[in-house]
Amino acid sequence: MINEVKVFVPGHITGFFEIIQNANPLLKGSRGAGITLDEGVTTTCQVYEGNGKLNIGVNGKYDKFNTITRKTIDIITDRYGVNLEDYDININHELKLAIGAGFGTSASFALGVSCSLPSLLGVDITFKQAGEIAHLAEVSLSSGLGDVISEMYGGCVVRLKEGTPVNAIIDKIQITKPIYVITKTLGSLDTSTIIENPVHQMRINNSGSLLLNRLMKNPTIENFIKLSNTFSTNTQLINGQLDEIIQQLNEESIGASMAMLGNTAFALSYSPDTQVDNCQITRLNTSGIRFLE
Amino acid sequence: MINEVKVFVPGHITGFFEIIQNANPLLKGSRGAGITLDEGVTTTCQVYEGNGKLNIGVNGKYDKFNTITRKTIDIITDRYGVNLEDYDININHELKLAIGAGFGTSASFALGVSCSLPSLLGVDITFKQAGEIAHLAEVSLSSGLGDVISEMYGGCVVRLKEGTPVNAIIDKIQITKPIYVITKTLGSLDTSTIIENPVHQMRINNSGSLLLNRLMKNPTIENFIKLSNTFSTNTQLINGQLDEIIQQLNEESIGASMAMLGNTAFALSYSPDTQVDNCQITRLNTSGIRFLE
Repeated sequence: MINEVKVFVPGHITGFFEIIQNANPLLKGSRGAGITLDEGVTTTCQVYEGNGKLNIGVNGKYDKFNTITRKTIDIITDRYGVNLEDYDININHELKLAIGAGFGTSASFALGVSCSLPSLLGVDITFKQAGEIAHLAEVSLSSGLGDVISEMYGGCVVRLKEGTPVNAIIDKIQITKPIYVITKTLGSLDTSTIIENPVHQMRINNSGSLLLNRLMKNPTIENFIKLSNTFSTNTQLINGQLDEIIQQLNEESIGASMAMLGNTAFALSYSPDTQVDNCQITRLNTSGIRFLE
Repeated sequence: MINEVKVFVPGHITGFFEIIQNANPLLKGSRGAGITLDEGVTTTCQVYEGNGKLNIGVNGKYDKFNTITRKTIDIITDRYGVNLEDYDININHELKLAIGAGFGTSASFALGVSCSLPSLLGVDITFKQAGEIAHLAEVSLSSGLGDVISEMYGGCVVRLKEGTPVNAIIDKIQITKPIYVITKTLGSLDTSTIIENPVHQMRINNSGSLLLNRLMKNPTIENFIKLSNTFSTNTQLINGQLDEIIQQLNEESIGASMAMLGNTAFALSYSPDTQVDNCQITRLNTSGIRFLE
């Protein structure tokens, strides 16, 4: 079917970060570091000639409250002057990751749409321009500040300069052998209530900026997870039950910390085994977004 | 074996480019656009405690004239103060692509070494720092000016700002469905004699800078190959025999042009079939460098 595009966008866990405020949404964002996962969101986008029907689903179920998908569509139509009344559109996001648990799923939803919908509407944009649209959707809803660019490139991404993927600067920690990501989710956290709270902002930024410098002086995956753990302590975002799981995971892996921002523990390991019950185990993704046949 | 790293670096074909001179090798490079291939170079690097033995092979055969590999090693040892007398090193590059035929193999050799050797010597560097070393090796030998960064990221890479991968800026043309690259090589061209020649430089730069702007205004794979074809005509680098093959390939594909710089025709196609004899057919790579287990 010529009028369908399918794209896999990896999930992303931020280890530590610093919020960079700016009145211009193109320049607002975050610096920090995180890892992407071989689990993520597969978005299927279908466009037909029609009269303005829009169907948004998650795992095949109609989801009219998927605000990030709607926001991304709005940005595309506004920027490129597309009249949606001429089309019928079906968008479905398939995922196994928990939503709101620190896996960057809102960014994956946004990128799934911004990478697939424009070309189906006859609008040709580049990879970074598609990323910019997704970043703007994220920033305007405060659902994320740095997941988009990391999910585009994959790996252990270090975000050195904030902003949309057109303006931002990244680097990557080299990962020369397979790494497993072991996660355990206790529930969700609302990203926007934390990143818009001044007390949280202060603690996050005081810790995040120092840690980024320390990672670049010693750019290894071992150091990344150690610094992430320091961040989770410094920012006081961690709770007792999660802390206990992180300590358990820490003993049997390269290291463990809290997913920023979600009520989720994550560990990095050279082996897919763990003694902790009911974990989700996936490979660390190293290649970012992938279009599917 | 803990002291071995194996990395696949895709080959790269430049469609059109512009040479940017600079006395500072960190800022010298090129702008332009090209595509990476699922064929490339697999570099295996082994490091042991030893007394300075260095073995460089290509397809398993000892190759003492592999200057790009030696240059890359020299840059690493100089930058990070490594004494090679303490180690024995084996490096082998496996490839099926022709060398000197416009497939960016020298950049693949350099990246294969710069992404694998440092960590084995206890030197931790980032992805872009490894790319910087490879770019410096390429520029100092005039064996290439832009292949390194394209091979790092994969896809149809547009090089918007020149320099090492730390300084440079890229974007990508979105490729939402599989594309095949059909190539036919008539022989080699020496990159350095062309890019150091003032007449060639002038023709290349006059054409290259205009085409880059035209690609960004209409960023599609169809436009990329059309503009590449225009470049091959404008620069007068193409010969009669190659031109004939390109015209044949052009009729049965999205479009065809000459690999810059090699005596090689390449076509992009949605199908892996061709009427032209003795072609090499590979998929367009979209994910760049990949470490192997």
